[in-house]
Order: sequence, then structure tokens, then C-alpha cells
Amino acid sequence: MEILVYWDCIQVPLRTGPDMTDITARLEDILRASKVISGSLHASVVGSTGSLTTLEYEPGVVEDLKRAIERLAPRDMEYLHEQAWHDGNGHSHVQAALLGPSLVIPVREGKLRLGTWQQAVLINHDNKPRTRPVEVTVMGRG
Amino acid sequence: MEILVYWDCIQVPLRTGPDMTDITARLEDILRASKVISGSLHASVVGSTGSLTTLEYEPGVVEDLKRAIERLAPRDMEYLHEQAWHDGNGHSHVQAALLGPSLVIPVREGKLRLGTWQQAVLINHDNKPRTRPVEVTVMGRG
Amino acid sequence: MEILVYWDCIQVPLRTGPDMTDITARLEDILRASKVISGSLHASVVGSTGSLTTLEYEPGVVEDLKRAIERLAPRDMEYLHEQAWHDGNGHSHVQAALLGPSLVIPVREGKLRLGTWQQAVLINHDNKPRTRPVEVTVMGRG
Repeated sequence: MEILVYWDCIQVPLRTGPDMTDITARLEDILRASKVISGSLHASVVGSTGSLTTLEYEPGVVEDLKRAIERLAPRDMEYLHEQAWHDGNGHSHVQAALLGPSLVIPVREGKLRLGTWQQAVLINHDNKPRTRPVEVTVMGRG
Repeated sequence: MEILVYWDCIQVPLRTGPDMTDITARLEDILRASKVISGSLHASVVGSTGSLTTLEYEPGVVEDLKRAIERLAPRDMEYLHEQAWHDGNGHSHVQAALLGPSLVIPVREGKLRLGTWQQAVLINHDNKPRTRPVEVTVMGRG
Repeated sequence: MEILVYWDCIQVPLRTGPDMTDITARLEDILRASKVISGSLHASVVGSTGSLTTLEYEPGVVEDLKRAIERLAPRDMEYLHEQAWHDGNGHSHVQAALLGPSLVIPVREGKLRLGTWQQAVLINHDNKPRTRPVEVTVMGRG
């Protein structure tokens, strides 16, 4: 019944954004190593063109979400970010800020408490492939 | 001045989405049982067609937010999710992923520290009524 | 290797929304005072017309994000909130609810673990200048 704090970082390769991948199994690995039985897992993407959410990770929904993200900040709009930086990823910054970089998942009986069809998903919004660090902190009772 | 970790789960019935309800009082009940005086409350909806946020919970804003959610992913668009699953809720998955499943609320002097007009709100995006589990974890000093 | 819980509140003045400011340095100050080395920092804006996210805080992206926020809930649409309250900020409530009031940032080696170009940003969505409280909780190993 001790209070535990455990942390780790995973590196997740992604293609040109919006691209996303299911990181649930990697979070479960960290949770197992943490020996936390009841508490919270916090995941945060490091970098300003990535985001985290949960999703039913099947190819149709993945594509549907990509399209909705493009509607939020289409890549072919004009962005002021380009005037200073010319790196073509103004839309990436806006998309990532709207979705948000962090996610909290409950830990119960030593497992992530997600729905049957609910997975933790990392999104790359950048206009080039990126390997993204995700920092994971687990806190709770062991 | 002990560090406490407490957790509980509430079941919240909601109508066809987008529908939402104020869960602040139920979170306050869990907080009171936790005996945490200063720290954080983490709430996460279990399931991939629900989300959590805060809102001034009055009928006008509730309707305004429903309309904005519909604009993010209108139910009458075409969704690839439908091609495999035919359950008519492609928009629900997209809406929920954009809003996000988790919420952190500060705990101060044994109470949720929210604004006077700010309530914790659970949203059902699914195309049928759902009773949704919300997992709640409270951590901090007792 | 003790478990620490620390909390503080900052007051952040902002202009008429959507306006935003970089609060990273102020969060770092609180983190330093907390003496937490490894864990999580939780920030939550108090009030229903504010939000928190991360962003590359340069003037171009700031303006690009403001425009995207206006597209989510334009100020010149009709809002039912106005019919009861007539305070002209229906769009503010909707924008803030979509972006969300809370943010989790990992703490590693006594510092916020953000990307090089990633800052913590507080947004005021209200239709008048507001000084906004942000409650900050830090938990982890000292």
C-alpha cells in the first residue's frame, strides 16, 4: 500500500502528419514496470506538433479523424508562421494546439482502464516524418 | 499531512449524442470521501465516444456547444468507419477524439477549485443513449 | 526520495479574447519551489472562458491559432447563451470548452520536460480583458 511514482519515455516513429499510431501496448509495458495497482498514468508528447487522445483505433476511424483534423487547420490555408519560418508547417502547430499534448488514463487493478474499443493514440501533425518522445508518469498505490 | 490516493467510478446515463450533463456534484462526493485537502482530481471517461470538459452549465451554452460539436464532425457527412461497421456513429468517434477523454481539476481546502460558473461536464457523442463510466482518481495531501 | 505534493496559484492578465500568453517561466518558478525532481505538473485555469495548451509561442503561430479558434466558434454567430445573459460571450464559452481547461506537463530532473519550441500557453476567450487564476499542482519524487 505504498505510494509509488514511476516514469519512462518512449520514442514513437510516425509518418508525415496527420499520422497516428496506437501506443496502448507501450503504455501498458510501462505501467507493468511501475508496479502501480491503482492511480493515474499521465502521458505527454514532447514537441509542439504532436498530440495525444483516445480513439477506436481501426482504419476507418483513423482516416475519419485525419480528415477532421485537416478541416480544423487545412494545410493549404495561409499561415503567418510561414512568413517568419518558411517550414510549411503552420497548420501542424495549430492542429496540435487544438488537440492538446497530454492525456490522463486511470489505472485500476494494475491495468489501464480504457474502454474495449478505446486506445491511446499519438498523432504527428508535422509536415515531415517525426520520431516523437512521449513522457509517461505513473503515480498511485502499489 | 499524509499523501493519499483514492479512486471511485460513477455511472452516468446520457441521451443520444451530443448530450451532456453536469457531474460536478458527483465528483465533489468522491473528493469528500477521499479526505484529500490539497492536490488533483483526475476524471476519465471510459469508452471511445465520450468526452469531458468544463462549461458554464446553463441551457443556452449547452445548446451552443452541441452545435459547435456538430460542426466539428457533422453526423450527415460520410465516414469511412461506416464502411466496416455500419453502426452510424463515425461522427461520434471523431467528435470524442477531438474533445478528449480526460480532465484534471485542482483540489484546494478539500474542495474542487472551479470558477463560480464552471462545471465539470460529461458528453456522450454516441448515436444512441449510453450510460458511461467515469473513473475518478484523487491524489494529494490529506 | 520522498513523495512531495506542492501547489500554488498564479494570476495572469490577458486582453480581450482570443488572447494568449506564455506561462512557462511562471510554471518553472513553481516547480523550483516544489523541490519535485520527477513527476507531473498539473495546471488548470479557473473560469469557464479560459483554456490551456502548448504552442510554439512565436507571433505568427499565435495569430494562426487565434484565427483557428475564431473558426471553431465565430464571435458573429448567433448563440443561445445570449438570449438569457446578453453578455456577448457565447462564443467564448464554446471555444474554451472545446480546447479544455487543464494541462499535464512531465517533470524530469527538476525541470518541465517540454520540447525546445513548446511553451505552456494560457488563453483568454472572453470578450473583455480578464486576469485569470491558474492553479498549479506538482506531485512526484523530491
